[in-house]
Order: sequence, then C-alpha cells, then structure tokens
Amino acid sequence: MTKGRPESVPDGPFRRPRYSGGMTVRFSSRVDISAPNPIAAAEAKARAQGVTLGKLNDSNPTRHGLAPAEVPGEYTAEPRGPHAAREALARFLGGVDPDSLYLLSSTSQAYSWLIKLLCDAGDAVLAPKPGYPLIESIARLECVDTIEYQLQFDGSWYIDTAAIEELLYSPEGDRIRALVLINPNNPTGSYVKPEERATLVRLCRERGIAIIADEVFYDYALEPFDGNARLAGETGALTFALDGFSKMLAAPHAKVGWIRVSGPEDDVREAQRRLDVIADDYLPMSDIIADRLPGLLSVAPRQTAHVRDRVRANLATLHTLLARDEHGLVDVLRAEGGWNVLLRVPAVIDENELVLRLIGTRRLTGQPGYFFDMTTNGYLALSLLPEADEFRANVTAVLDTVAAMLDLG
Amino acid sequence: MTKGRPESVPDGPFRRPRYSGGMTVRFSSRVDISAPNPIAAAEAKARAQGVTLGKLNDSNPTRHGLAPAEVPGEYTAEPRGPHAAREALARFLGGVDPDSLYLLSSTSQAYSWLIKLLCDAGDAVLAPKPGYPLIESIARLECVDTIEYQLQFDGSWYIDTAAIEELLYSPEGDRIRALVLINPNNPTGSYVKPEERATLVRLCRERGIAIIADEVFYDYALEPFDGNARLAGETGALTFALDGFSKMLAAPHAKVGWIRVSGPEDDVREAQRRLDVIADDYLPMSDIIADRLPGLLSVAPRQTAHVRDRVRANLATLHTLLARDEHGLVDVLRAEGGWNVLLRVPAVIDENELVLRLIGTRRLTGQPGYFFDMTTNGYLALSLLPEADEFRANVTAVLDTVAAMLDLG
Repeated sequence: MTKGRPESVPDGPFRRPRYSGGMTVRFSSRVDISAPNPIAAAEAKARAQGVTLGKLNDSNPTRHGLAPAEVPGEYTAEPRGPHAAREALARFLGGVDPDSLYLLSSTSQAYSWLIKLLCDAGDAVLAPKPGYPLIESIARLECVDTIEYQLQFDGSWYIDTAAIEELLYSPEGDRIRALVLINPNNPTGSYVKPEERATLVRLCRERGIAIIADEVFYDYALEPFDGNARLAGETGALTFALDGFSKMLAAPHAKVGWIRVSGPEDDVREAQRRLDVIADDYLPMSDIIADRLPGLLSVAPRQTAHVRDRVRANLATLHTLLARDEHGLVDVLRAEGGWNVLLRVPAVIDENELVLRLIGTRRLTGQPGYFFDMTTNGYLALSLLPEADEFRANVTAVLDTVAAMLDLG
Repeated sequence: MTKGRPESVPDGPFRRPRYSGGMTVRFSSRVDISAPNPIAAAEAKARAQGVTLGKLNDSNPTRHGLAPAEVPGEYTAEPRGPHAAREALARFLGGVDPDSLYLLSSTSQAYSWLIKLLCDAGDAVLAPKPGYPLIESIARLECVDTIEYQLQFDGSWYIDTAAIEELLYSPEGDRIRALVLINPNNPTGSYVKPEERATLVRLCRERGIAIIADEVFYDYALEPFDGNARLAGETGALTFALDGFSKMLAAPHAKVGWIRVSGPEDDVREAQRRLDVIADDYLPMSDIIADRLPGLLSVAPRQTAHVRDRVRANLATLHTLLARDEHGLVDVLRAEGGWNVLLRVPAVIDENELVLRLIGTRRLTGQPGYFFDMTTNGYLALSLLPEADEFRANVTAVLDTVAAMLDLG
C-alpha cells in the first residue's frame, strides 16, 4: 500500500524482511486517500502560491459574522486541532513540532483513531497483560482483536520480549498491526525499561508495526529510576505517544488528550496523511476547550506535583500499615509508577469472595486481579489517590477482611 | 442476537417477516454485553438499594480533592453525558426524557457510534444520493459500506421509497442495518415528507432496521411547508435523531452534538444497553462544555432566527439576480430548507471546468454536482450564509463566468 515496501521473504518457519532497515508500516484500507479531483488539486496549488480562495459552498457560519457572541472567533476546522493550542502544547512539551501533535477528547478516542489508521477488520493489536480491559473493548468496537503479551513478575515487572518476537514472526504475526505499550503500565506500575525498548523498537521496525505508547501516567514515578524515558519522540519505529489532562492535570472531566507522532520520516509522512483524513472526519477539539489550553497547561506542573505527593505519601503509609499488620498476610507488589498498586493476599482466598465480603461488610468495592488478567488468584488493585484518612481506612478494611476470612480476625 | 426475534420466511424472491409487527433490531457483535461478573452484579444490587459503595480502586482524582481549581467539580463519568447538561437539553427540547439523550462532540461522532452499534464489518447503511460524502467516509472508517438511495427531482425532491423497499427485500438487504435520513437533506434542501416517512418507518420496522435521522438543518426552513415533522421521537421504528450546536447555534467550533433515541420499547432498551457501553468507552463530553450548555441553549433561538433571516434574505436575492440576468442561463433548484442551494447551469458546461475557471479568474472555489453524486452534469452548490455583498458577488461571479464560457460575456 505504501510505496517502497520490501517484499517479505520466507525464511524457515518465519518470514523475514528483505533488508535490515525494516519494513515500512502497512496502513488500513479504511482511509480513502484516492488521488484528489482536479478542483482539490487546483485549490492546493492556489494555497501553495499563497492565494486565498473564496468558497461558493462555504458552510462555516463563523466566517460570515454569524458566530454567537458566547462562542466568539472563527472556526478554522484544522484536523489536528486549533493551531494556537497545538503551539502552546508543543512549547509545553519542550519545543516539539506542533504539526506532530493531534488534539482530541481522550486517549480512548486516540486509540480508536489509531486502530482505524492501522488495522482492517480482523487485524490485531498487541496489548499488555496484566492490563486494563479498556483497550480490548475499544479494539473490539473497531472489529479488531487484541492479542495479549505477558508482563512477568520476579520482584519487578518485565516484558517478555522473546515471546513478543516469536509472536511477531509467527503466522499469527501477519495480522498484528500495532504494539500497545503502557508506560508505566496500569495496574502493575511498571515502566518500559531501556533494554526492552531497544528490542521492541527493533522488532516493530523489522515487522512494519507501529507502537502506540500510552504515557498518561509517565510523570507519576513512585520510586527513583534510571534510564527510563518517554517513548514520545522515538524515531526508530513509527510511534504514536498518547497523553492528556486526565492524569497530568488530574482533570479527567476536562477531556483533553493528544497524540504525538514520530518515527522514520517515510512512515510519519504516510501516517499523518492518513490520520489527517480521520481527524478531518471528526474534528473533535472544541474551541471552548482549545482557548483554555494554554492556561490549563500552566497549572499542569503544580497539579502533577500535588498528585504525585499524594500517591507517594499513600504508598509510604501502605508500607507502614503492612509492616505493622500483626498477621502479615498481605503485601504489595513493587510498583514503579502510576496511581495504583496491586495488593497480594493469600491465594487460598477467592478474589471474588474477598470483594463481595468487602461490599457486604464494609461498603467498599474493588477490582481483583482477574479484572486485569493476572495469571493467578490473590490480587486486589488499590488506588493511591484517596486522602490520608480514607486511604488508611481502605487498607485497614482489606487487612481486617482478609484476617476475618482466614478466621484470624 | 436479541431475544424474541421472529425468523424470516422465504416469500417468492423476497423474504418477509413472519408477522406484521416487524422484526426487532439486530445489533452488531462489536459491543461486549456478556453477563456481569459477581462483583459488578453486587455493585448493581447495592446501587438499586440506594447504598453508595466506596471504591478501593478509584482512579478518579476529582473525588479525592485533587481536581484543579481551574476545572472545578467532581467528574461523574456518566456515559450519556453529565446529567445536569442532559436535563437542560431535555427541557430545551420540550420536555423529553433526559435519559433518551446522549451528549457528544459532533454528529460525526454520533454516526460513528451508531454504525458501531448497528453494523459489523461488511454490513451496510443506506444513505441519500445526492448527499454529502462525509457519511460514506465515516462508514468506511468503521469497515461498513454505504449503499445509496436516490432522491429524485421533478420540481421538488422526493425519496424513491419503492426503490428502498426493493433494496431492503433483496438479498443485498440482509446486510443493511440502518437507513440514514437527512431531514432536510444537504445540499438538496429537501425535507422527509409525511407519506415518505410513513412508508420508511414501516419498512424499517418490518426489516428490523434502525433509522439514523440527521436533523441539524431542521429549523432552517426556506419556505412554508405543511405536515413535515422532526423524526426525533418517532416511535414506529428504532430511531436515533442527531442534532447539535454546529447549525442550531451557528457554532461548529463549540463541538456539541447529541443523539435522541426513540422507538419500540424493546428496541430502545436493547439499543441503549449497548450504546451505553460504547459511550462509556469514550466519555467524550467535557465538563468545561457541559457547564456552559444551559447558557448556550438559551441563545439558540436567537441564533437560529439570525441565521434563518440571513439564508432567507440571500435566497430572495438569488431569485432576484437570476430573474434579472440577461442571459437566463442559470436557475436554482427548489430548496425547502438548509443553508445551501443547487444552481443549475447549462449542461454543455463541464462542472470541473466551471469551478477551475472560477478559481483561476475569480479566486472562488466551489463544489459541483458530482461531489454529491448528482446523476447529471451541470450543478453547483451555493451557500446562503455569506453577508449580502459577498453573496451578491458570488452569484454575479457564477453568472458572468457561465456567460463567458458560452462566449456570451
């Protein structure tokens, strides 16, 4: 579909790209990028010459003095989002190219657009397990399958990159069009490590697969770490990095998200040409919100610091409460970042029964490990967001309930 | 998929439903509506008993005193949109049920959600021809085909309902899951007439097909008419009516749209159960916008009247200019409503050449009839939105250019 793509060559049980530079990325057939008609071509030529054309068919009332005073300004209908807002965001992100950014309403919407861009019906995306089930639900809405790859825990979480490599070079690998990396992952809290990243970028480049990097929790490190970095801006493989105000600003109700595109030049150009068509069909960013973007960005550092202090303090409280617990039945898996941790309870306790008992006796509900496809029983997700008293009460309720279920209460 | 659906029975070349009450609507398999796990069931039971449960896994920072002062309030994450905003809209719409409404960012997004709700990959929606190509593009992004049905012009536009009936009962009809009605259509400006509506509602009910009624231009009648009505609220077949601020408020940059669901009770219940899952995955309505909804709704009548005055005045100007034109080469097709009309130019003039000449000599571009799948050459869409002077200049440019192309200038 894209020009210059090398033919793959059979190589034992696996197919290998013809040359080491990798494959260019294959895009879906959902996006109509047929050649422009003569009128569109003439319009483009005029634009290139700096000529502004009037439009006989202009259906934009804001260009004709008809916008309400309550929503002033002229609607520019820019697919990637209003330019001034993208410029403000680009500066905030440290001077990235505003044209590499797409503004939209949420990372859910970003996933939806990117799956449309990359996957035809029946194709698949790779997503982490354990992980939140939202990605699978969104992919299914796009008629796309989710294939899970495993995060393993050996005191820290790591990505089983060898299994991913095997999968990508298996016959099943032909329908995998994107690798979803959550950095740090939720609820495991684990960052993508430098050596994992190097392997995964290489594999994606080799196989012509895009990376979708969800980095909404990136700035919420729970412990010092070396060498981790955002995937945003990665140039080794076509990369779509997602972020937004939901976590950065603790403002999920603001509904501001964005995609940053990077990677090999050819892939980026082809991806943006197609993503522009998708964005142009939806044009989701309201000027009411875009106008507030610079102001909201200015409070992001304060908000991130405020929430980070909260989650770190709660994590310290948790360690204290677990250490003091007379029964010692519950511990917490090491989490490197994010807003959630995973408690580990004795595996003899059924996860469903634990939560049902919490609902019945403590008016507290929760998500056990099977919600995130943990491979064994005995886990419970715990949010680090609550205020100190509520957080203590939550932890105490879990400890007491576990003890009671083992007749130790 | 839904319970109680009658089997269809072969009947000559066509298949007919078993009984006259019609079929219940079939929904797509994209939405996961598997039975709730025991925890979700216990949560629902608690809710039904009025018990508010705490959440060990609560990832909503606004419930823990962490929302920024710049976006105050608690995020309620209601799939259909913030309740207060839906109540304000429901009152504005004349006292409809707030729970029949879904708030989102645009009618494009509404189309996308509804196609996901109704169509699997390879299914099809029926859409009007002539019509704007956006629906086809959005359907293609959902891996769904668009099958066109014809509007015919005999001095007025009408829907060829007999052809739709034949299509729905043909083998091709099995993959048609929705009928898109634009009321009034764009750019033909034609409303769905009472007798057309009666036939189409009956057919959709018989075939278990949903109606997607795009009524964004409804309040922009260009001439008096009798008997037309909004499809919003139709009870004879499952109906999703779309509207929003883009046209009602002349504020496309506000990005406010909504879906109103109505129809047979069973279909509505099943549709909303599934649409809630889709809406819950995206949750697109920002509280920043929702908070402004009541205020913006209060200026909608003024805005609609202001724009209606503009388009009616321009239409009167157009008739005057065409009547006065010495060559009499251009006329306008009767338009009943909306912001656009179709000019008819001598068919000997190639549509592309006309627009290319306007670009080259008048710095004016436009959309000829083939953009909207007009079946014959010789049409040009004209917006009625511009201010008086610009509108006159646009019309004069077309008249002069047509005359010049026929060596009459």
